[in-house]
Amino acid sequence: MEEGLLIVLSGPAGSGKGTVSQLLLRSPDFAFSVSATTRAPRPGEVDGVNYHFITTADFEERIRRGELLEYTNYCGNYYGTLRREAEAILGSGRNLLLEIEVEGAANIKRLRPDAVLIMLLPPSFAVQEQRLRGRGTETEEKIRARLTRSREELDRLPIYDYIVYNRDDGAEACADDVRAIVRAERCSVRRNPDAEKKFFER
Amino acid sequence: MEEGLLIVLSGPAGSGKGTVSQLLLRSPDFAFSVSATTRAPRPGEVDGVNYHFITTADFEERIRRGELLEYTNYCGNYYGTLRREAEAILGSGRNLLLEIEVEGAANIKRLRPDAVLIMLLPPSFAVQEQRLRGRGTETEEKIRARLTRSREELDRLPIYDYIVYNRDDGAEACADDVRAIVRAERCSVRRNPDAEKKFFER
Repeated sequence: MEEGLLIVLSGPAGSGKGTVSQLLLRSPDFAFSVSATTRAPRPGEVDGVNYHFITTADFEERIRRGELLEYTNYCGNYYGTLRREAEAILGSGRNLLLEIEVEGAANIKRLRPDAVLIMLLPPSFAVQEQRLRGRGTETEEKIRARLTRSREELDRLPIYDYIVYNRDDGAEACADDVRAIVRAERCSVRRNPDAEKKFFER
Repeated sequence: MEEGLLIVLSGPAGSGKGTVSQLLLRSPDFAFSVSATTRAPRPGEVDGVNYHFITTADFEERIRRGELLEYTNYCGNYYGTLRREAEAILGSGRNLLLEIEVEGAANIKRLRPDAVLIMLLPPSFAVQEQRLRGRGTETEEKIRARLTRSREELDRLPIYDYIVYNRDDGAEACADDVRAIVRAERCSVRRNPDAEKKFFER
């Protein structure tokens, strides 16, 4: 069984990351990993389904043991991807899709240089601004914070392998780009270093 | 207009290179370049359509002037790709598909490091041998020569970017792999070094 690919999908607010992920996850070729968190379950959330709910002491012990592929602390709670869970998915041949911001992506690239880092972008900053304002749901302050944040995110573009633009033709075209990237990566000579040996032995 | 990609397709005898090329060339996204040659036109061959028929002196002068992207001498005749012709196709936004053996591919990679080198392979040496013998059209000596040649070709695999296996599902799946490779390459950060600048300026 050929291992799945570890796909990291990042993208600033307004890039449509969530929609593209959902489209990809409709296919059995892609899977997501249930995150671990130290925040309390909300009504209706099921342990092992929505999250692995664990204590802060447990989470920090797992960080020390290197059991987290990536993690972040948001509003006093830890969130992260369990390495064991990720490896089980990859081992089953499915591609693991992680929706992660740029710092997490950089960490994953260090731990797993074979990860494929994809940055999803609106066609331009102007369009991004337009999309964020068009939602009409956020304060001016929040919109500005998100736009400032996107400058920092774009600065990290060089650690990424691919850029996918979410143009007007939308999320389905982006999902097709990601599928093509996976197909191409599987063909790459870099990922098949023993191809010559296998060719003659098989 | 975004430039097309320069795609080099190589593959040993029995890899099905010709069939895969023909499938790709059905789409207007791909084009081939009319080669230049010093051999005499055969009955029915049209200058500028089948080949650019030129004299040996002219061909050698063009080699000196660096007008050939790649060339080879086979049975005393030169065959090659005119750089001008290749660049016209790429400039029109179409992907240029060149079916070239390993030495030519290595030359192209030196002249155009942005070329995408794809090696098409039978699933294994055993299958290749089976396919060549199955044709029943070639002498044992010729078959052995081709099989020896494929060992040399496989040795050059590290200069290639991608391997596409022509398995039992055949040429159409290989053409899909090449299309995915082109789509992915267009998304690569390496090919879009000014993406950040463009994002903010556009």
